[in-house]
Amino acid sequence: MNPDAQILRSLRGAGEAGVSGAALAKSLGVSRAAVWARIEELRRAGYDIEASPHHGYRLHGSPDRLHADDLLARLGPIKVIGRDIQVFNETSSTNDIVEKLARDLVAEGIAVFAESQTKGRGRLGRRWSSPAGKGLWLSVLLRPNLAPAAATQLTVSTAVAVARAIEKNTGLQPGIKWPNDIVFGTRKCAGILLELGAELDHIKHVILGIGIDVNILAEEFPEELRPIATSLQAEAGHPIDRPSLATALLQELDAVYARLRAGDFHEIGDEWMRRCTTLGQRVTIRVADRVVTGRAEALDEDGALLVRTEHGRLEHIIGGDVSLAK
Amino acid sequence: MNPDAQILRSLRGAGEAGVSGAALAKSLGVSRAAVWARIEELRRAGYDIEASPHHGYRLHGSPDRLHADDLLARLGPIKVIGRDIQVFNETSSTNDIVEKLARDLVAEGIAVFAESQTKGRGRLGRRWSSPAGKGLWLSVLLRPNLAPAAATQLTVSTAVAVARAIEKNTGLQPGIKWPNDIVFGTRKCAGILLELGAELDHIKHVILGIGIDVNILAEEFPEELRPIATSLQAEAGHPIDRPSLATALLQELDAVYARLRAGDFHEIGDEWMRRCTTLGQRVTIRVADRVVTGRAEALDEDGALLVRTEHGRLEHIIGGDVSLAK
Repeated sequence: MNPDAQILRSLRGAGEAGVSGAALAKSLGVSRAAVWARIEELRRAGYDIEASPHHGYRLHGSPDRLHADDLLARLGPIKVIGRDIQVFNETSSTNDIVEKLARDLVAEGIAVFAESQTKGRGRLGRRWSSPAGKGLWLSVLLRPNLAPAAATQLTVSTAVAVARAIEKNTGLQPGIKWPNDIVFGTRKCAGILLELGAELDHIKHVILGIGIDVNILAEEFPEELRPIATSLQAEAGHPIDRPSLATALLQELDAVYARLRAGDFHEIGDEWMRRCTTLGQRVTIRVADRVVTGRAEALDEDGALLVRTEHGRLEHIIGGDVSLAK
Repeated sequence: MNPDAQILRSLRGAGEAGVSGAALAKSLGVSRAAVWARIEELRRAGYDIEASPHHGYRLHGSPDRLHADDLLARLGPIKVIGRDIQVFNETSSTNDIVEKLARDLVAEGIAVFAESQTKGRGRLGRRWSSPAGKGLWLSVLLRPNLAPAAATQLTVSTAVAVARAIEKNTGLQPGIKWPNDIVFGTRKCAGILLELGAELDHIKHVILGIGIDVNILAEEFPEELRPIATSLQAEAGHPIDRPSLATALLQELDAVYARLRAGDFHEIGDEWMRRCTTLGQRVTIRVADRVVTGRAEALDEDGALLVRTEHGRLEHIIGGDVSLAK
C-alpha cells in the first residue's frame, strides 16, 4: 500500500483520537516533514485534515471525489477485486482501459473508475451517459476459470453485488431485472456490461463494466428517459456519498466472486431470484433475431433464465432484452 | 484492386498468349513506363516475367513467397474472406495483428499472413512453431451474427474448409480430429485457434487463426513431435506450392462462411462428420477440470460434439482435448 493510502487508513482508524505525525512517520518509515508534505497534498485534494498539538492529525471530512489511495485505504481485507485501483478524471470508457490492461496480461482484480466517460457504453454498443461526478462508472478485470457458457454466472453475481452494495449503503431496496438492470419499479438506476475474451472452451478474461446513476436529480435526466431512468439520490431524497458506495461495491463484488470461485453459485443464484422482479412475470425476450414469450420461472445452474413458453417448452435464455408481455 | 494485383491477374489470365504493355497501361490508366517499373518491381520480388516484342509480358513462374497482391489477383470473386490481405515477413502472432484490427473496427474478411511467427500460439496458450516459409500461418477477422454458444459452428466450418483446400490442392485426404485438428492418421498437420470478443449474448468479433505445416520435412520436426506431427510435403512426397494452397484456403473459407451465414450449417456439419476420424470412437475428452469418456456419436446443430457416456447419458462437448479411450 502506498503512503497516501496508509495515511488515510491510519486517520480513519484513529477517528477523533487522531494520530501523531511521529507515529505516521514511523509506520511509513519517512520523516515527519515528508508526512507533512503528504498531508498537505491530501488537503489540496479536498481532505479536511486538522493538525493539532494535542491530537496530531484528525480526518474530519473527505471530498466527493474518487481517490484510488482512499478507496484502497477504506477497503480493508479483500481477496481479489480491488487489489489495485485506478481512478481517471475522464476517459473514453473504463471498459476500454481495462481491455488494454487485459491484453497487457495484468492480473485479475484491478478496478478502474472514471469521474466521467466520453464514450461510456451499455450492452450491444448502446450509449451510456456518464456525467462527471454524478455516478460510479467502473470496470473490473477478471480471469475466472469458467467455460464461456458459464459467464452468465458472472452477470448474475454482479447484479447481486450491486444490489447489496446499494442496500447496505443507502437502505434502499433495488430490484433486479433480467439480465442485468438494477431497478426501482420500472426505472433503471444501474447497468452491467460484461465483455469477454475467450477461446471456444476457455475464458481468457472478463471485463465487468458497471454504471450506477448516483447523484443525478430526476429533472436532470433527458425528458424521454424520465419514465425509465432513476438515480439513488432521486430514490433516497438526498445525495449519496460516492466513495463509500464505491467501497461497499468493491467489497460486495469481491465477496460474490469468492463464492463463485468456491463453486457456490447456487447461493448467489438463490439471492438473485429473491431480488429479481422479472421472475413470475409473463415476459417477451428478444435475443438476437429470436423472440421468446412466456413465464420467467427460474435461473438454471449456469445462470441462464428459464422461460416456460405457451407450448409448455422450457427455454434457456442468455442475455436478451426483456419487456413485460401484454 | 491495386496495380500489382491487376497486373498479376492480367498476366495469369493471358497465360502463354501474354499481354502487351500498351494493354496493361490502358487498363491501369497509367503510362507504359509506369507499367515497366511495376514489372521490374515484381521481378525483384521473384516473379519470372518475360518481356518480348511479340507476346508482350508473360508470367512463367512465381516465387514461393506469399504476396498480398498476388493472392488478391489469384482469388477471383469472393464474398467476404480475402476482401483484404496483409502479408508480414515476420510477426509475433497473426492473431495479435488481427486482434488489433478488430479493435480498430476494421471490417470482417481481412486475412493476415506471416512468413514466420515469433510467438505463434495454439489453443490454451500452447506454443505453435511457425518456421519461416514452411507453412501457412494466417488469421482472419470475422464479425458473425452468432450467439457465443454457436461459435463452435465456426471451428467446425473452418476445419472443413482447411480439409477441402488441402484435398483440392494436393489430392491428399486429411481427416478431422475433434475439435479442430487436421490429421493424417494420428499425425496432425494443421490446427485452428478461434479467439472471440463477445458480450454475453452477442459476438463482437472472431479471430480465426490457422496454422498448416506445409513444406516441413519429417526429419525437421523435433524428435518428440515426430509420432504426432506431419506436413503436407511429408505426406505427398513433394513440396507443395504455398501461394496456390493459400488461395484455395481463402476460397474455401469464404465458401463455408457464406453457407454458415445462409443458415446452412447442417450441410457443413454433415461434411465435417464424413471427414471426422473421431466419430464412432471411444474417446476421453478433457474440458477444463472435467473428463468425459464415451462414444463420440455426432455433431449437434450448434457444432457441439455429442458423446454417449457409459451411463447412457448424452454429453454436449465444446472444445476440449481428445484422446482415444483405452
